[in-house]
Amino acid sequence: MEALKQKILAEGIVISEQVLKVDAFLNHQIDPALMQQVGHAFAERFRDQGITKIVTIEASGIAPAVMAGLELGVPVIFARKYQSLTLKDNLYISKVFSFTKQSESTIAISAKHLSAADHVLVIDDFLANGHAAKALIDLISQAGASIAGIGIVIEKSFQEGRTLLESEGYRVESLARVQALADGRVTFLD
Amino acid sequence: MEALKQKILAEGIVISEQVLKVDAFLNHQIDPALMQQVGHAFAERFRDQGITKIVTIEASGIAPAVMAGLELGVPVIFARKYQSLTLKDNLYISKVFSFTKQSESTIAISAKHLSAADHVLVIDDFLANGHAAKALIDLISQAGASIAGIGIVIEKSFQEGRTLLESEGYRVESLARVQALADGRVTFLD
Repeated sequence: MEALKQKILAEGIVISEQVLKVDAFLNHQIDPALMQQVGHAFAERFRDQGITKIVTIEASGIAPAVMAGLELGVPVIFARKYQSLTLKDNLYISKVFSFTKQSESTIAISAKHLSAADHVLVIDDFLANGHAAKALIDLISQAGASIAGIGIVIEKSFQEGRTLLESEGYRVESLARVQALADGRVTFLD
Repeated sequence: MEALKQKILAEGIVISEQVLKVDAFLNHQIDPALMQQVGHAFAERFRDQGITKIVTIEASGIAPAVMAGLELGVPVIFARKYQSLTLKDNLYISKVFSFTKQSESTIAISAKHLSAADHVLVIDDFLANGHAAKALIDLISQAGASIAGIGIVIEKSFQEGRTLLESEGYRVESLARVQALADGRVTFLD
């Protein structure tokens, strides 16, 4: 997605060879018009797939997921970090290990919002090692729902996330694929 | 806002005389089309005010804030819970006490995204005692920015939030004002 790549080049900050900071338009400050384009790009890729729900994770997945949900005409569920929940009964629960924070967190979805009749599009802001996506897939599978694919705003293609997800048969659609973060510069695949 | 009130009546769950659960369309599962209408309603109320940024708080404020930002053509910043931040330098920081969770949390905004030149619309999903709004106002004031007003999706009018904010001179625009949660039923003001 060209507008996204241009935004990454203009406003993304390369913190290290592993870390790209995009808090100017995606995960702290949000560019709503860009998110609308991102939502449109996801909708284009999954429009004919019979999606009934989008599942993402708080907080940075919400803006792109809601814009995709608006265009596809389906509800969005954001998995909550367990400690932020006020009611803890009737939940699907999974665990995510974050390398960035070096800690494990628990995420959850209320069982009443997802069923075996659902066909789900997973959306997240980043794909790195695939742990967050795997935890979302785990939650969706607990509900017995099927998965149409995984929509990612920015993929760090030098990490193993895509390979892991594709090896398990999932379709991965990333709007920007970062090949490397060398010498303080972002380079893209294709 | 009539569509919002109807949604609250149809899908909101009265947990107690203090607690209204709206996780079917606002703070766990999100109805994107309703959020677009909510964003439009906020934009209508603040369109001529010279807003340059919207500030909200993760996670449930993001969807309504991004829809308002899309229509007003301005960026949205979501204040982050401090423990979710990877970089902790150059921040405005404030504290919020949550009665629901009976704990204090720290929220932050990166200083580089907000300046004295900004005129800010604050948006949040709920207004109860006003503590979250006050913490957001504190962050914005640290930046030297001015505040155009506070847009709330659901106000619990039987709590002191509006009175507190108005006593300090802030304009409060709530799209649904809940008068009471008695006998398991929601009643609205006006």
